[in-house]
Amino acid sequence: MLGSTHGTLTTDSRRARVIACGEQPAPAVHGRPAATDDLDVSGRPLYAGVPDLDRFFRPESVAVVGASDAEGRPNTGITRQLLAWAERVGARLHPVHPTRESVFGIPCVPSVADLPEQVDLAVLLVSDPLPVVEQLAGTKVRFAVAFASGFAETGAEGAAAQTRLAAAVQRSGLRLLGPNTNLNAFEKFRDDLDGPAIALITQSGHQGRPVFTLQELGIRLSHWAPTGNEADLESADFISYFAEQPEVGVIACYVEGLKDGRSFLLAADRAARRGVPVVAVKVGRTETGSRTAASHTGKLTGADAVVDAAMRQYGVVRVDGLDELQDTAALLARARPPSADGVAVYSISGGTGAHFSDLATEAGLRLPTLSDAKQAELHQWIPEYLDVTNPIDNGGHPVGDWRGRKIIDAILADPAIGVLICPITGPFPPMSDKLARDLVDAAEETDKLVCVVWGSPVGTEAAYRETLLGSSRVATFRTFANCITAVRAHLDHARFAASYRSPFDEAPRSPSPSCRKARALMRPGSRLSEHAAKQLLRAYGIRVPREQLVTSAAAAVRAAGLVGYPVVMKASGARLAHKTELGLVKIGLTSASQVRDAYRELTDIARYEDVSLDGVLVCQMVEPGVEMVVGVTHDDLFGPTVTVGLGGVLVEVLQDTAVRVPPFGEEQARSMLGELRGRALLSGVRGRPPADLEALVEVVLRVQRMALELDGELSELDINPVMVLPRGQGAVALDALAICR
Amino acid sequence: MLGSTHGTLTTDSRRARVIACGEQPAPAVHGRPAATDDLDVSGRPLYAGVPDLDRFFRPESVAVVGASDAEGRPNTGITRQLLAWAERVGARLHPVHPTRESVFGIPCVPSVADLPEQVDLAVLLVSDPLPVVEQLAGTKVRFAVAFASGFAETGAEGAAAQTRLAAAVQRSGLRLLGPNTNLNAFEKFRDDLDGPAIALITQSGHQGRPVFTLQELGIRLSHWAPTGNEADLESADFISYFAEQPEVGVIACYVEGLKDGRSFLLAADRAARRGVPVVAVKVGRTETGSRTAASHTGKLTGADAVVDAAMRQYGVVRVDGLDELQDTAALLARARPPSADGVAVYSISGGTGAHFSDLATEAGLRLPTLSDAKQAELHQWIPEYLDVTNPIDNGGHPVGDWRGRKIIDAILADPAIGVLICPITGPFPPMSDKLARDLVDAAEETDKLVCVVWGSPVGTEAAYRETLLGSSRVATFRTFANCITAVRAHLDHARFAASYRSPFDEAPRSPSPSCRKARALMRPGSRLSEHAAKQLLRAYGIRVPREQLVTSAAAAVRAAGLVGYPVVMKASGARLAHKTELGLVKIGLTSASQVRDAYRELTDIARYEDVSLDGVLVCQMVEPGVEMVVGVTHDDLFGPTVTVGLGGVLVEVLQDTAVRVPPFGEEQARSMLGELRGRALLSGVRGRPPADLEALVEVVLRVQRMALELDGELSELDINPVMVLPRGQGAVALDALAICR
Repeated sequence: MLGSTHGTLTTDSRRARVIACGEQPAPAVHGRPAATDDLDVSGRPLYAGVPDLDRFFRPESVAVVGASDAEGRPNTGITRQLLAWAERVGARLHPVHPTRESVFGIPCVPSVADLPEQVDLAVLLVSDPLPVVEQLAGTKVRFAVAFASGFAETGAEGAAAQTRLAAAVQRSGLRLLGPNTNLNAFEKFRDDLDGPAIALITQSGHQGRPVFTLQELGIRLSHWAPTGNEADLESADFISYFAEQPEVGVIACYVEGLKDGRSFLLAADRAARRGVPVVAVKVGRTETGSRTAASHTGKLTGADAVVDAAMRQYGVVRVDGLDELQDTAALLARARPPSADGVAVYSISGGTGAHFSDLATEAGLRLPTLSDAKQAELHQWIPEYLDVTNPIDNGGHPVGDWRGRKIIDAILADPAIGVLICPITGPFPPMSDKLARDLVDAAEETDKLVCVVWGSPVGTEAAYRETLLGSSRVATFRTFANCITAVRAHLDHARFAASYRSPFDEAPRSPSPSCRKARALMRPGSRLSEHAAKQLLRAYGIRVPREQLVTSAAAAVRAAGLVGYPVVMKASGARLAHKTELGLVKIGLTSASQVRDAYRELTDIARYEDVSLDGVLVCQMVEPGVEMVVGVTHDDLFGPTVTVGLGGVLVEVLQDTAVRVPPFGEEQARSMLGELRGRALLSGVRGRPPADLEALVEVVLRVQRMALELDGELSELDINPVMVLPRGQGAVALDALAICR
Repeated sequence: MLGSTHGTLTTDSRRARVIACGEQPAPAVHGRPAATDDLDVSGRPLYAGVPDLDRFFRPESVAVVGASDAEGRPNTGITRQLLAWAERVGARLHPVHPTRESVFGIPCVPSVADLPEQVDLAVLLVSDPLPVVEQLAGTKVRFAVAFASGFAETGAEGAAAQTRLAAAVQRSGLRLLGPNTNLNAFEKFRDDLDGPAIALITQSGHQGRPVFTLQELGIRLSHWAPTGNEADLESADFISYFAEQPEVGVIACYVEGLKDGRSFLLAADRAARRGVPVVAVKVGRTETGSRTAASHTGKLTGADAVVDAAMRQYGVVRVDGLDELQDTAALLARARPPSADGVAVYSISGGTGAHFSDLATEAGLRLPTLSDAKQAELHQWIPEYLDVTNPIDNGGHPVGDWRGRKIIDAILADPAIGVLICPITGPFPPMSDKLARDLVDAAEETDKLVCVVWGSPVGTEAAYRETLLGSSRVATFRTFANCITAVRAHLDHARFAASYRSPFDEAPRSPSPSCRKARALMRPGSRLSEHAAKQLLRAYGIRVPREQLVTSAAAAVRAAGLVGYPVVMKASGARLAHKTELGLVKIGLTSASQVRDAYRELTDIARYEDVSLDGVLVCQMVEPGVEMVVGVTHDDLFGPTVTVGLGGVLVEVLQDTAVRVPPFGEEQARSMLGELRGRALLSGVRGRPPADLEALVEVVLRVQRMALELDGELSELDINPVMVLPRGQGAVALDALAICR
């Protein structure tokens, strides 16, 4: 039997899991409505209840509205399948039909009002579920499933119908799956498989088929939630629920559009706290994908970079193809927590080992060189002239006899090694059959992950189909890339889960003192002047240059004296952009006469260019450093997002930026900087000193605070540049743009 | 029967192919040694003969040296396989053994000197092939194969043995395959398959097994060359030979290290001229890969970026996993030249279509929106509410009846569509069996490419194994990524082949007048001063600022007058680096007194820093533009390479560069610029004018000329920066570093 901290079958496992993440105790009450103190300062929930879906997946009684046994009716086939399912799960089934006496010999009632008992689940096979939902309101039914299509996926009219349906559901108190869903939740699951299972969530039922079919290869599947249009229950609800089920080892999702950003994050947070990996295909890498996905499910797809960041923040493994979803989910379901992140590549050919290691290393896996002692041990069985540093080349012959298993066990016994990958390139039964058997046997006796890439394109060989696929311990792949992707996901998720701290526990709930000051500066519907935007920053403790706004040359000279020479002078006005291009910035002014001249010149240019000024800024001149940008934008799905990037030409030409969805902690702010291609600039190049990273991280966190607290007032903020001075000297916002809602 | 311009089975096909690439007539004489006029100006060959390997692959008589029929000897199994092979190809086999009378009933001769006839091929099963090769020299044998290992793959001693073997082969006049090779060339190939075939070349025999096994899925394989250590015959020889064989539709290679850069390029050029695609795994993406690959075959692996560029220059499709090699080669072998590059994605679920389209678009495939007329046509059979713009969603039901085939035919009839991809996500026999059948039938009647992604992880379904794999026209995949990779390779290669012009036809054969001037400037073993390096550039017509080297303040003032104010002054010396950091550059000097002061300051700093100067450069100050770098470096495998990159921080921090292996034409110089991430800088950003691309391309081509002509004298050149001025105003090399051999 398999056992792991994230999904065992033992009775104690659930308790063990809760203890394992005891630092962030899970809320005791499930499914409660969010209380006021469960909102962050932006008004978004910090907590989402877990819907109790036990009775959905294992109801005691079911009503089938629109049940039929008439030949040739589509509902007849569905009714038949529901009957078989009800029998399997031991549920009483009540057909509902306005005119039939009975369906498949079971007495029918004319409407849901006439049901002989309170049912757990009503399956609605009718083309318009709305009236039935309204009727159900009085029956205390807990769940309904609506198969009908023709809602948001078809356009504006359908979307309106869906809104009406959602409202009726809300009033009724029941929870609805669908509309535009199907029978997937009620399919026949294999019950002869053990070990941690995959729980599957799909918005397009058809797309879940490959993962469902994994059962035929011996991979256990515990649930399938085909969420369809998500008028009520959404993917996030199922993620939360599945994360709590002891038999679930991994949650696999196929997502076209997310219904709500925050509820997805809270669900992913719950899975992260529990250490249950979530692996997801999220359509919408391109415009094409998001356009079609939107037309298919009628949901927001979100800017892809933001979705990508949000998923990474919560350790969600994003993959592309359905084959990657299968292979990654299958591995994550079964793999035990790695004892080390070192990967050993073992093969019967030096070429195969070199090739696989090359690709694995490029993908970021770590292949530690084996110790001299370990190499000597391996050379007991492997000829001396073969390279066993890692990759380990056995030259072929040793796999055919008793040495084969010794070698595998010796590799697995190495504490530096957490994963053994064996690419079996060509099936040559005298060797590969024995090798496959040895790998399967060795995998039974270790907690370490054993992977095989079966290189033969045929796939009907006994060593593959019986030995390898017959093992519940070996993860078998057909492609190099999918093996590497899945192993990386496993090691990355383990690293992520080990250090995960939920940002929701520390998210601000009430406005900081800065907020009141900041709100006073906002001008609804307008763009703030540079000076006002900088006051906003100053309110949040972000350093700006000493500066004064002046409206006369004499005042400019006085200001320069106060600010201290040399000074920078800039035209200031609410609608001013491209100041540098227009010549509206003067730098390095060192005397009163230069300041006076500059004042005259700036106001002349402004007059000539016909831009209205609220004055001229006289600013302290800041030492050179690394120019960065930090900003806030609004994402339709997730709300405010914080971006950091390299400044100047790097942000403009290369869009070298990193984004995060608040709330996030300091470690995420730091990891944003690590994502930048030009990050080396911050470490000091060309003999420049390293930049003050701490100060930059602090700016990012303060901007996040602004983004959350001023969510209702601030639609966009762009600090460009933030001059990051040498280490220990801080960071200064030299210019800023703020747009109020 | 399949027919395509790159690999048909008709008798006329070879002629047709030669005519198709008639603009670059193939040299008439094959296998001739390179004549003096077949060298480029760097002394590298512009032409490589095609070894006539007909008698290697189909010999009339074979000697097996070391043949055995003694039980338990490894050579016995090999001899048995060779006997079977000789029978298949109709060759007479002569065992050679010093003591045996006969082997498997065939009379033995004691040595190769005693062979009863002149043989085409000698297979050497002896542990030391050297003495046999020496004996063979007198026998006029054409080919030998040496299986023995223990040569360059084992280290320095083995490498020396290999050098001796290679020398003996050279003296003997025979051509040798190996050492460290195996039986792969003599395996049993299926002869019941038709259509264009894959020809396979592998350095590690084991790694070719998956491609060989494709025959079990009905993909024809015509040859397998396991090149081993390549003491004589190398991968390039086989590429050239295979490119000439009419039955070969694609050449698939597994390469660990290339023996010689130029011979690889010439072979790839031959395949490109013939329109035969080459698809290759080349190990060495990382240090790990190249280290292990080098230890495995004892060959140079080359800097990976250079290998990558060289492959792209000649249209070689580089892939990573062996599964990609299989899938891409199988598609390229069979696909006919595309009539359009538009891809249609067709599925029975909107979700599947959206998902696949998203990934395909992201990978660079083009999914044209179908015309209104075509959409109307499709809506005859597909319900109106389903989206058929492309991706085309049929909603499921139409595939189950007569409409299924109509829809496929209608899509294939669209002139905008060259490729139809149908992801079949879940096998549901009532639909998917019919869909598979319809796709196979439709593919028989079109020249367009039809691809299926079979999503079920099981792979034993009849629709997959019998219907789809049974078709020689449908390309079937198991993963999204491999389908997309292969289709892209097909479309990209077609585009490449259509516009291919061999750079060898236009490569310089004799030194330009610049060369003599340049050579006079070289200082063997030294680094040239900035001034001398710029004279080198000037010799090749690359613009440099007006400048004078002076050794007194008075001369500096005179020079400034001649150069014209404002001027830049720089300390000049052969061993001077980091001039700017040391304060050894003064810019924007506008008067004689500033020049005099600058002279004094520069020489003072040099004295203080203890650097010896050959003088001070007084240079014209050049207008601002886009700073680029252009350089030459030496690659161990390919010789001189030319690099272009964005200058300043971009090259230093982001290594934003593109590289090419000479000779290359103007179109490659242009495509280098297109590869740069920061290329938008050249088009003008922040209101700057677009840069003079033509002038930059010209600089790259002139630098290429230098790299070729001065290959023996110049080990490194770095022009940093080249200031590219606004369009029409040229490009100026502001600083240069040249290191002489």
